Amino acid sequence: MAPHPVVELTSEASWNLIEDKFTPYGKETLAKLVHFLQDEILPSMKLAHAQVPKDSVQRWKTVVPVIEELKVKARKLGLWNLFLSKTHYPEHGVPLTNVEYAVMAEILGRGGHIASEAVNCSAPDTGNMGSPEQQKKWLVPLLNGEIRSAFAMTERFVSSSDARNIKTSIKREGDEIVINGHKWWISGAGDPRTKLHLVMGKSDPDNANGYLQQSVVIVPADAPGVKIIRPMEVFGYDDAPEGHCEIIYENVRVPMSNMVLGWGRGFEIIQGRLGPGRIHHCMRSIGAASRALDLMIQRVTDPTRKTFDKFLYQHGTVVAEIARSRAEIESARLLVLSAALQIDKQRAKGALKEIGIAKFVVPAMACGVVDRAIQAYGAEGLSQDQELASMFAGLRTLRLADVHIQQVGQRELKRAPGLHKRAAELKEKEFSVLSKAGIKAHL
Amino acid sequence: MAPHPVVELTSEASWNLIEDKFTPYGKETLAKLVHFLQDEILPSMKLAHAQVPKDSVQRWKTVVPVIEELKVKARKLGLWNLFLSKTHYPEHGVPLTNVEYAVMAEILGRGGHIASEAVNCSAPDTGNMGSPEQQKKWLVPLLNGEIRSAFAMTERFVSSSDARNIKTSIKREGDEIVINGHKWWISGAGDPRTKLHLVMGKSDPDNANGYLQQSVVIVPADAPGVKIIRPMEVFGYDDAPEGHCEIIYENVRVPMSNMVLGWGRGFEIIQGRLGPGRIHHCMRSIGAASRALDLMIQRVTDPTRKTFDKFLYQHGTVVAEIARSRAEIESARLLVLSAALQIDKQRAKGALKEIGIAKFVVPAMACGVVDRAIQAYGAEGLSQDQELASMFAGLRTLRLADVHIQQVGQRELKRAPGLHKRAAELKEKEFSVLSKAGIKAHL
Amino acid sequence: MAPHPVVELTSEASWNLIEDKFTPYGKETLAKLVHFLQDEILPSMKLAHAQVPKDSVQRWKTVVPVIEELKVKARKLGLWNLFLSKTHYPEHGVPLTNVEYAVMAEILGRGGHIASEAVNCSAPDTGNMGSPEQQKKWLVPLLNGEIRSAFAMTERFVSSSDARNIKTSIKREGDEIVINGHKWWISGAGDPRTKLHLVMGKSDPDNANGYLQQSVVIVPADAPGVKIIRPMEVFGYDDAPEGHCEIIYENVRVPMSNMVLGWGRGFEIIQGRLGPGRIHHCMRSIGAASRALDLMIQRVTDPTRKTFDKFLYQHGTVVAEIARSRAEIESARLLVLSAALQIDKQRAKGALKEIGIAKFVVPAMACGVVDRAIQAYGAEGLSQDQELASMFAGLRTLRLADVHIQQVGQRELKRAPGLHKRAAELKEKEFSVLSKAGIKAHL
Amino acid sequence: MAPHPVVELTSEASWNLIEDKFTPYGKETLAKLVHFLQDEILPSMKLAHAQVPKDSVQRWKTVVPVIEELKVKARKLGLWNLFLSKTHYPEHGVPLTNVEYAVMAEILGRGGHIASEAVNCSAPDTGNMGSPEQQKKWLVPLLNGEIRSAFAMTERFVSSSDARNIKTSIKREGDEIVINGHKWWISGAGDPRTKLHLVMGKSDPDNANGYLQQSVVIVPADAPGVKIIRPMEVFGYDDAPEGHCEIIYENVRVPMSNMVLGWGRGFEIIQGRLGPGRIHHCMRSIGAASRALDLMIQRVTDPTRKTFDKFLYQHGTVVAEIARSRAEIESARLLVLSAALQIDKQRAKGALKEIGIAKFVVPAMACGVVDRAIQAYGAEGLSQDQELASMFAGLRTLRLADVHIQQVGQRELKRAPGLHKRAAELKEKEFSVLSKAGIKAHL
Repeated sequence: MAPHPVVELTSEASWNLIEDKFTPYGKETLAKLVHFLQDEILPSMKLAHAQVPKDSVQRWKTVVPVIEELKVKARKLGLWNLFLSKTHYPEHGVPLTNVEYAVMAEILGRGGHIASEAVNCSAPDTGNMGSPEQQKKWLVPLLNGEIRSAFAMTERFVSSSDARNIKTSIKREGDEIVINGHKWWISGAGDPRTKLHLVMGKSDPDNANGYLQQSVVIVPADAPGVKIIRPMEVFGYDDAPEGHCEIIYENVRVPMSNMVLGWGRGFEIIQGRLGPGRIHHCMRSIGAASRALDLMIQRVTDPTRKTFDKFLYQHGTVVAEIARSRAEIESARLLVLSAALQIDKQRAKGALKEIGIAKFVVPAMACGVVDRAIQAYGAEGLSQDQELASMFAGLRTLRLADVHIQQVGQRELKRAPGLHKRAAELKEKEFSVLSKAGIKAHL
Repeated sequence: MAPHPVVELTSEASWNLIEDKFTPYGKETLAKLVHFLQDEILPSMKLAHAQVPKDSVQRWKTVVPVIEELKVKARKLGLWNLFLSKTHYPEHGVPLTNVEYAVMAEILGRGGHIASEAVNCSAPDTGNMGSPEQQKKWLVPLLNGEIRSAFAMTERFVSSSDARNIKTSIKREGDEIVINGHKWWISGAGDPRTKLHLVMGKSDPDNANGYLQQSVVIVPADAPGVKIIRPMEVFGYDDAPEGHCEIIYENVRVPMSNMVLGWGRGFEIIQGRLGPGRIHHCMRSIGAASRALDLMIQRVTDPTRKTFDKFLYQHGTVVAEIARSRAEIESARLLVLSAALQIDKQRAKGALKEIGIAKFVVPAMACGVVDRAIQAYGAEGLSQDQELASMFAGLRTLRLADVHIQQVGQRELKRAPGLHKRAAELKEKEFSVLSKAGIKAHL
Repeated sequence: MAPHPVVELTSEASWNLIEDKFTPYGKETLAKLVHFLQDEILPSMKLAHAQVPKDSVQRWKTVVPVIEELKVKARKLGLWNLFLSKTHYPEHGVPLTNVEYAVMAEILGRGGHIASEAVNCSAPDTGNMGSPEQQKKWLVPLLNGEIRSAFAMTERFVSSSDARNIKTSIKREGDEIVINGHKWWISGAGDPRTKLHLVMGKSDPDNANGYLQQSVVIVPADAPGVKIIRPMEVFGYDDAPEGHCEIIYENVRVPMSNMVLGWGRGFEIIQGRLGPGRIHHCMRSIGAASRALDLMIQRVTDPTRKTFDKFLYQHGTVVAEIARSRAEIESARLLVLSAALQIDKQRAKGALKEIGIAKFVVPAMACGVVDRAIQAYGAEGLSQDQELASMFAGLRTLRLADVHIQQVGQRELKRAPGLHKRAAELKEKEFSVLSKAGIKAHL
Repeated sequence: MAPHPVVELTSEASWNLIEDKFTPYGKETLAKLVHFLQDEILPSMKLAHAQVPKDSVQRWKTVVPVIEELKVKARKLGLWNLFLSKTHYPEHGVPLTNVEYAVMAEILGRGGHIASEAVNCSAPDTGNMGSPEQQKKWLVPLLNGEIRSAFAMTERFVSSSDARNIKTSIKREGDEIVINGHKWWISGAGDPRTKLHLVMGKSDPDNANGYLQQSVVIVPADAPGVKIIRPMEVFGYDDAPEGHCEIIYENVRVPMSNMVLGWGRGFEIIQGRLGPGRIHHCMRSIGAASRALDLMIQRVTDPTRKTFDKFLYQHGTVVAEIARSRAEIESARLLVLSAALQIDKQRAKGALKEIGIAKFVVPAMACGVVDRAIQAYGAEGLSQDQELASMFAGLRTLRLADVHIQQVGQRELKRAPGLHKRAAELKEKEFSVLSKAGIKAHL
């Protein structure tokens, strides 16, 4: 009997645990996605790379043809905007829970950014957005896959992982909003289809509450004063055409109606993006790690590879690395799925510890698994002939935030008063038990 | 609102994931067990230790009174033989699945061997056993908590983790079975209440099939020729009165009816014991690790502890260790629960990879968490004043088997043919996609 | 050609690096020590253990006969008080540098506390001490191996790794000193030969300088008010007869002449003990780790041990663990030797970073190596039949101090101003180089 | 007092340990090199990168002007061919031992490949070579820095880390040698100045001795049939203009006089290259790691960087990472220096274990330290604005060979017979000691 297609790409044990959380629609969509990945996306990946020119100017003007073709096919199959909840967006959304979409995100993670783009589930576009007017103008074409967007948060010369440090200014002048700031690492800003930037800045820098100082404004990509300085590279990759750009916003002016949600609600907006978004990132990373492990197994069982009179799979150390990788992938997946279920049951706020754990465990795990796969491939694993090195580069950027481990630790420490209370009760009972038995407790 | 008692001792996220796998009976029993642990077992632990005499002879003749009292209370509450499936033992068993009992085993793990013994769920006694006659004579008093048993497998001078190396001989002579062998690390054999040993040996050493050479025989503890040589120590602990004994069986004779299951079925017996048994061991270890983390949090938030002008919980490294421990416990628990569910759905045979993963992940994880807790307590953590050092010793014995990681790796490698097949298909499609686009694939 | 005896027990590469730092006396003494270890100490270790009675009272009244015999032999060979510098103690000391003694400490580390005691180099006795009168009364019999001493610093209920937290009071009353305090983990205090305690306490608790509040006083072990409460255990070991005792000093009165060095100089005393003392501890730990690796190699090449159709040494994972252990031992030894040389060249004060590095690297390394050896031995490795488990327990107590890693980090951070200065110079030159070449530097 | 310049860039403790192994010439050269690095090389690095065009064709035709200028300056200062032993090459060599050059290699490692090239000590050119005629034609211009070379060993589709797997054929036809093979990862082959390839192949594939089948032949870079297919990339870096090229040798014909050393001596040649060459690689890696740690310290003490109300250096976890990095660098350096000294005393053959240890410890250590530095810099650390990401990529290629850890383990295992012999002697003595004391040894 052929293995269940989902089980083949995830694992039987984790599927057993969550299968009953899937609706028939969820199961059917997942099965379609698995086949679309294998039959359409994966076979197109080399072509997609080949269709980006080497030329350092042309590569930034490219709309990759094969991805556009994949998008048409995907939409026809109903594999479109899967990240978008029907509850919040009845017209364009789909009826999937976080757990259901999480499993699909893992599948997508096996196909890199091409897979996500093919089904219109790319990271920078998956935030929610604004007023009916804003939605009509920007969100609808985004959800149709006609344009793309960029979220401009990170700033140069500033430790902007703490949003309170952000320096970009957002000021009201007459009936316009004026934006000045210096951002970098703005993903997607290089893409010729990107028509809008969501720019985060300080609109009320003197507010006593550090979390009410920020606003987010829609800036058309072609507004005067938007200067794309250069693409940033990760290791030696520029990830054209999307890219991660350095951008200066110099006296950029937009109408008042471009304010998102309202003045001072910028922090709220990024918080909302981060909860489920982090789950998606984590699941895509797990998909990448799973793919890397598959590649590793293929390599070590390659009958043409033999060193020092043994095939690679005959080395106990290699076998142990494979087992360790499998165990790490399984446990990471279970962690993220349990966080996703927690979100489904209690919204993101009730799942902050689980999301935090996922955030510091998963990228490190995935980097480690991919690193082992690279090791099995030797120099080839580091080269353009395998997807492992660029996979590692992408995952490494997700491993940057050290703040999560401290936050999870702090959340654990909140259990201290309860534990002390219980320990005191226990001590008392223990004392009474010992006294009855006539034993003098040692202090 | 007070936290849910189960959530408090396990975690909300994992409970969310499996709550719907519990029957009302399962939930009720679990709640009772949680309260019994906290109200009765934990307060009695110091007394139980105190009731074992220091004297090196007397300590082996002791039946600890407070444990006997706990057993009476537990039985009244229906917290008894929880490991025993009603399906197989309608009379004495309980209607709990592996997932349900797994959660209870974690709770028990917080109370060490005393907790397990109090509810008659101690490891060496939890195997299944034999003919109606054998059951009547031995199993019923075991299930009543009147006697205890020992399972004699490990041998001195032999790498007996591979059962095929076992040297003890089991021979038929007339209508008797004669046993000769040299065992050690036989847990429970020191206990004055232990009335039978299940001895594994070779009854057919020349059988071509290395897994049909073994048999298991019931040996009364007081049979002539059963010589208990000495207690083995783990670190400096002898774990009296149960102990881990070195035993020589010298021409021990038992009737033919003492053969368990049948000649040559010894391997089958230990296999049957190991599947769910390993899950229980793992969950108890997770309970121990959880308890250690609680103790660590209590210590680092102790207001009287300050070094170099900071409380311990103000050190970022300590916070990170706590977060890491929490993450490791969560993911280990999810791994084991998913293995338990796998057993419930497909029996142990279909869960061998999951059980194997649990076996090499959990003891290492638990040793690590307890080690960090010890570090937080300093020298006190290594001493008799805290339960951490003896916890570590017990967990360290569970981390001895390296074979699991190799077995899991081997199981992963079985996926290779499927992966190669799929890779070949992918290569073909990829080639066709590139050809259509007029691009010559690079080799 | 037989290997050089020192090389055999340390390593050729490290010996090559430091051989020219040895005087002929140093080399000769080292060679004698190596032979004494192998011919006399190691063969006597089992007997030494056997000569400590099991009885929980008698074991604390024992002077182990074979160790006394070893002491006589060692002294005759000139292997005596090797830790004691002739420069400071012309009469009893030996002309060895720190590097020379460090190598000898490694050799001693292979023989546990018995080896150190046999050559009168036990840790608690190796501090320097006091006035001519004090030396005559206490130091001379110590250096003759007739009596032993204990250093009472650690306190119960107090984070006393920071000496400023110490609570024991040392007060002048008339012409007497009165001591009140609650100590524990006082090594050697259980030994019947221990005649004096060096007690650290606060004599000037209100001094603005937290490092001038402490004094150290000599307290005769039999002074009224000295109450030995109980032995503390480490992983179940009580280490009788020396032991690690809990002691209450209740209104203990000693004459003014028992003050060591002078009022308020307590911190200075412990600082002086710690520098070279830490090197010795580290080198003994390296000796222990080397011994553990030897035992591991013996086990994995034992021709009677075969599991799953392979000898242990045929498992690639085992081979890798051995290589890793060897590498870790080599690099740890080099670190400590370089710290010892640093002390020889610049005194302890100029070697604080090196000593600090050794302190956090070596115990963790040694615990790890011994843990792997235990793994190779299976359960036997955790038992009384091998020296590994007690070795681990001893090493684990040395791994408790987390403060060193922070201190080393802080010392590294002191390099920051110099680095910033140099970076600014570099930036300037770089700018000038780029300008000359007509290239506008990117910001 | 200003710190000693060498101490500043290496460390006081390691310098203390080896200072007396330096001649006055060695010390003077080292001091010059340190200043040359700081005053000339480091300030030129950005320019050197800027002088390589972005254009994907032009970048391979470039001779970087500033490097050529540095070469002129270096040669004038006598900082030239420092790797070349005067003993073997009296005319062009320098009188430096392996220990002395090792320290210089660390200094060079701080300046990447530019530093090594500036003093004509680049890796692929540093092998020794051939007959007087070959030396005149090829070696002299190499040693003058006029041309460059490539060593063609690694093959595509073959696990060529085991040289016995190599497939390239080297055949005699008439008075010519004919070469056919498919190589890749041939460093330096892209450089327009590279005039010769040293090609390793099989000249006697049927020789029973697998280590006598290989020969090395000099192939002019412009010989007909030498086809450079493409540059290989490492994490997206092509390392132009040197590059790591894929090359097909198709019926390349060279005269008989181009055979190096003699037919069948290919293995001997690569062995000779590897010993000291590995030490150099390791020391350069340590230099890179040291530079990364300096950069990390600069970043975490940057007064403009503050997250969550703390500067980075105030996070205990950051301080611990710095301490750990310092400790790892120190111990790695000591390992490699002790291996270098071992080579000086016993030639490479007597230092195989030490070299092997260095090979598996150092690249992993350096990758780890650089990874932590990247973490401190966040995304910037992964970008083209810092040298860390490309440093990591280079170091990662050095961490590929897993064979060393197995080889070191095997060498350790050779100690087994000696250990068993000694253990048997010990057992006997122990038995005799116990017997005399009237104690019956337990088995």
